[in-house]
Amino acid sequence: MRNSRRGQVDPFIVMDVVEAARLLEEQGRSIIHMEVGQPGSPAPALARAALARAMDSQPLGYTVALGLPALRQGIARLYARWYGIDLNPDRVIVTAGSSGAFLLAFTALFDAGDRVGLGEPGYPSYRQILRALSLVPVGLPTRAENRLQPVPADLQGVDLQGLIVASPGNPSGTMLSRDALAALIAEARSRDIAFISDEIYHGLHYADRAVSALEISDEVWVVNSFSKYFSMTGWRIGWMVVPEGQIRTVERLAQNLFICPPHASQVAALAALDAVDELEANRAVYAENRRLMLEGLPRAGFSRIAPPDGAFYIYADVSDLTDDSLALSRELLHEAGVAVTPGLDFDPVRGARTLRFSYARATPDIIEGLARLQRHMAGRGDRRR
Amino acid sequence: MRNSRRGQVDPFIVMDVVEAARLLEEQGRSIIHMEVGQPGSPAPALARAALARAMDSQPLGYTVALGLPALRQGIARLYARWYGIDLNPDRVIVTAGSSGAFLLAFTALFDAGDRVGLGEPGYPSYRQILRALSLVPVGLPTRAENRLQPVPADLQGVDLQGLIVASPGNPSGTMLSRDALAALIAEARSRDIAFISDEIYHGLHYADRAVSALEISDEVWVVNSFSKYFSMTGWRIGWMVVPEGQIRTVERLAQNLFICPPHASQVAALAALDAVDELEANRAVYAENRRLMLEGLPRAGFSRIAPPDGAFYIYADVSDLTDDSLALSRELLHEAGVAVTPGLDFDPVRGARTLRFSYARATPDIIEGLARLQRHMAGRGDRRR
Repeated sequence: MRNSRRGQVDPFIVMDVVEAARLLEEQGRSIIHMEVGQPGSPAPALARAALARAMDSQPLGYTVALGLPALRQGIARLYARWYGIDLNPDRVIVTAGSSGAFLLAFTALFDAGDRVGLGEPGYPSYRQILRALSLVPVGLPTRAENRLQPVPADLQGVDLQGLIVASPGNPSGTMLSRDALAALIAEARSRDIAFISDEIYHGLHYADRAVSALEISDEVWVVNSFSKYFSMTGWRIGWMVVPEGQIRTVERLAQNLFICPPHASQVAALAALDAVDELEANRAVYAENRRLMLEGLPRAGFSRIAPPDGAFYIYADVSDLTDDSLALSRELLHEAGVAVTPGLDFDPVRGARTLRFSYARATPDIIEGLARLQRHMAGRGDRRR
Repeated sequence: MRNSRRGQVDPFIVMDVVEAARLLEEQGRSIIHMEVGQPGSPAPALARAALARAMDSQPLGYTVALGLPALRQGIARLYARWYGIDLNPDRVIVTAGSSGAFLLAFTALFDAGDRVGLGEPGYPSYRQILRALSLVPVGLPTRAENRLQPVPADLQGVDLQGLIVASPGNPSGTMLSRDALAALIAEARSRDIAFISDEIYHGLHYADRAVSALEISDEVWVVNSFSKYFSMTGWRIGWMVVPEGQIRTVERLAQNLFICPPHASQVAALAALDAVDELEANRAVYAENRRLMLEGLPRAGFSRIAPPDGAFYIYADVSDLTDDSLALSRELLHEAGVAVTPGLDFDPVRGARTLRFSYARATPDIIEGLARLQRHMAGRGDRRR
């Protein structure tokens, strides 16, 4: 049987948690989901209504490869609204989620064997997509004093053709300041390292907004999505902003690799751009959830947490409790009825001593989950004494 | 500015035709579209109704990476209905169109530098997707006496790790007989060449049905889609059937490269499996269109055509008229008001003397298009005499 080496990517460890949770629920157990990185809310009502109308009036066949012109223009206007940037809509590439954007960016930028840096902890699929494309992921361990984000010093002496940065980060929720982001972009530029900024959690901030790499340079690749702020994970619709000189290259790749992003999702996404009230209401829920988490997690004994500037995650150092985060996550699932993600997906080494808690679901779930965690961890302390 | 070599894929030539047609329509010209390979009909009514219901009752977040279990089971039942095959639903991988299936199959099977054979003429994106993945497409020129399909003799002395076959073919519409398909599978098997069968036009036949590679062997990769027979191009939803031993590898790749196929499209696709009456009515339209084309094209002077067993294309040898199919397609567009595809997209060499006519649109369009072609070509003969 033929198989490639590059096809042998790592499994998501969290998927085992998800499956174990599902089995427990089938047996009638109540499980609070703090493991999944997606909103509990559906696509905005405006988005669903727009698609319902379009289904009655249009065949919804292929669109042009780079996406509906109106959607590209709408996304460009979002950059004016969010960052005060005047963005050429031609630079906006509509993609099948941020996943599609990464496939396009990596194939446009890198040849087999090229090396791409990524901060650890970080989104696990960066590493696996790179491997599947015969590229070499280069993990850059980050430090708590740098808000778990890479700094130029981390790149010294490391041979790289590309660098991926995410602010707010997953799993950390930490942001890069404007200066910190500018320093990384300048370092990459000086060494001809392609700079890819994953901005999928933009819009989800609880104090200062996140800074886009486009506010600093036009020679960056910015990846974003309708999945998180716009609450449209399952619709697989996102976008990428590319340097002016790269549009044609990406267009040809997109025509061949994808033909086009899902038409129905494009129609829904275009309307979602206008759903400000509903989306800001969602954000208010996350803000309240975050407040409850910051208050409740320390009471459960999870007090060593990264500064949660944005997104809907809290990343906790649990090295005072365990050096086997997988075992701890199993314990919390089976004994407390709370599903959480072991850090190993995000950091193959240090993740054995970390957990990620998501607060993207409804507030009553967060309250109940925190109560379960507190009860369980209190009892655990008693048992261990 | 950084760029990869593999990102420099060829443009679709037909896109220039599409854009030129659009510009003419903007100027008020009437254009008959025989260039595009997609139905004019929308997704089946049952499919749209199912999605409208789901949007009101479910959040439509991420699904599991391999697709909704009910959809995988429904596709497995389709193999019983169409081919009398008892297929394990676990082997069915739901994908973001056949495009997603090719990305998964190629990364699971091949490492950078591996060589994959494909018959010429053939679907142009095979070649470009392979290049973008640092693989080497190996064109296998086919012959009219072999129905423009490869035969084992074409593989002799050619170093290959993979082979892609399409029956019915695009642009040819020709099918491989059971014996011809079995001979290719046996040849590939004996040389450890991975066999990928593109069956995207199955269901669209006008005499005998097409044979699936799964009727002959379980050690093949079969790619299919809801785009053509099920009239859902823009929904980007398809599937792949993989050998039993490959399911886990493909699952891990799918989790990382795509997360999941579009949820809304999966809901619609599941219902489309039951829309037999509407889809068979669509097929009757294609059958009538095909009859008109086979009668009308020769009257316009296009008489050297491949046997159009299936799909909705007619591939014509126009070497008696031109050795510049691009110029002829421009002439037909501008002077006759009929958009057709020059063969160069499908066969980089011999395609300079071929055209592809699509008959996927409504019958009145086909009648009008044929009349225009006949008038134009008659006048052209007069002018040239």
